[in-house]
Amino acid sequence: MTTPKAYIFDVFGTLVDWRESVARECAHVFDTRGLDVDARSFADAWRGEYQPAMERIRSGGRGYIALDDLHLENLDRVLATFGLEAQFDNAERAALNRAWEKLDPWPDVVEGLNDLKEQAIIAPCSNGSIALMTRLAKYGGLPWDCILGAEIAKNYKPEREVYLSNCAALRLNPADVMMVAAHNDDLVAARDAGLRTAFIARPTEYGPGQSKDLEPNSDWDRLVETIGGLAVTR
Amino acid sequence: MTTPKAYIFDVFGTLVDWRESVARECAHVFDTRGLDVDARSFADAWRGEYQPAMERIRSGGRGYIALDDLHLENLDRVLATFGLEAQFDNAERAALNRAWEKLDPWPDVVEGLNDLKEQAIIAPCSNGSIALMTRLAKYGGLPWDCILGAEIAKNYKPEREVYLSNCAALRLNPADVMMVAAHNDDLVAARDAGLRTAFIARPTEYGPGQSKDLEPNSDWDRLVETIGGLAVTR
Repeated sequence: MTTPKAYIFDVFGTLVDWRESVARECAHVFDTRGLDVDARSFADAWRGEYQPAMERIRSGGRGYIALDDLHLENLDRVLATFGLEAQFDNAERAALNRAWEKLDPWPDVVEGLNDLKEQAIIAPCSNGSIALMTRLAKYGGLPWDCILGAEIAKNYKPEREVYLSNCAALRLNPADVMMVAAHNDDLVAARDAGLRTAFIARPTEYGPGQSKDLEPNSDWDRLVETIGGLAVTR
Repeated sequence: MTTPKAYIFDVFGTLVDWRESVARECAHVFDTRGLDVDARSFADAWRGEYQPAMERIRSGGRGYIALDDLHLENLDRVLATFGLEAQFDNAERAALNRAWEKLDPWPDVVEGLNDLKEQAIIAPCSNGSIALMTRLAKYGGLPWDCILGAEIAKNYKPEREVYLSNCAALRLNPADVMMVAAHNDDLVAARDAGLRTAFIARPTEYGPGQSKDLEPNSDWDRLVETIGGLAVTR
């Protein structure tokens, strides 16, 4: 069994703690304005609009639009849900939307990616845009070799073409590429497309009450506890 | 005058010494096989097929094909020109084609890019593919934030859409992006697309007899002698 020539990564939840980070950014803004809003509930509601927004594109009902723009549309909905629509003008919404560019990596991530980068190509395969992944990498120090993901395919995971287009962009066969994720359904789709798979549990991604993806639900090629665990010991 | 939010770079000639590097790789192969071929002439001839191959795509006569594949087609022609077509089978041609993945950076490049990366987004805007630029970065230690270039537009420089698509991928206005090149015609096209421009002379890119691009031929926004010279002193 040869080692993968490239590792591609889910990012939101797998590498970065979007919930606590978005809540922190929102709490800062709410506090500044004296608004009494539970920031974690707000972050959860914002993330709750994520799959439905992408599904309209995956189903063909809408052309590809970058996640940055979907996040902004979703923010409009969530502000309305929380009765805050009158509190934020367009410029303030755009500024708040940048919360998604300031997501803290889990503690094992930066060191693990640096180790792995010595052995193979590493790249995000996220639903985030090239711009968002680039800014997130600069914020968190993620040492990517290149930025792949949804924008390469102009479609969203778990559509098969996202995984295949990412392998093609590297000019590698899917069997030489390993998809790494904390979400079993991402790995199901990657395996169906011919990629190798690695699962890492992130049991607090959705907070202390998380009920999903606490464990691998299939015989993925690798199970690791840290990103550095993917690196081959020589 | 604000500083650019991103710097995008021509690569072949501007950042890496393709001629000496390709000649070195070819000389190694020729020597191993006892073939008496002038490796620099071979590298020049190979590079001589570069613009005509892209022009067939820019003119619309052919769909986008990655530069890796054009390089391989061009290699077939050059081997024939040198009477070497019987000496290399397909696997050997594919191996020789990888010479383009092992190009040495000019001495100022790695340190300069690392300095600049502290201040702004840095990315290649090359006619090389994502795969080729990724491998070149790993070979030479180029610390890109992301890989842009021709493949984002599925067309080749100096087509306007390459520059514009690269800015769009970063979600930046062209006026916030600076194109850096050792080739005046690349900068003409970038300026026409609304980008800022920086020129750096690489007077030995084509060897000691180089007659082109020895000097800037217009009032580019910046003239630098090293890549690190782009970094703002604070």
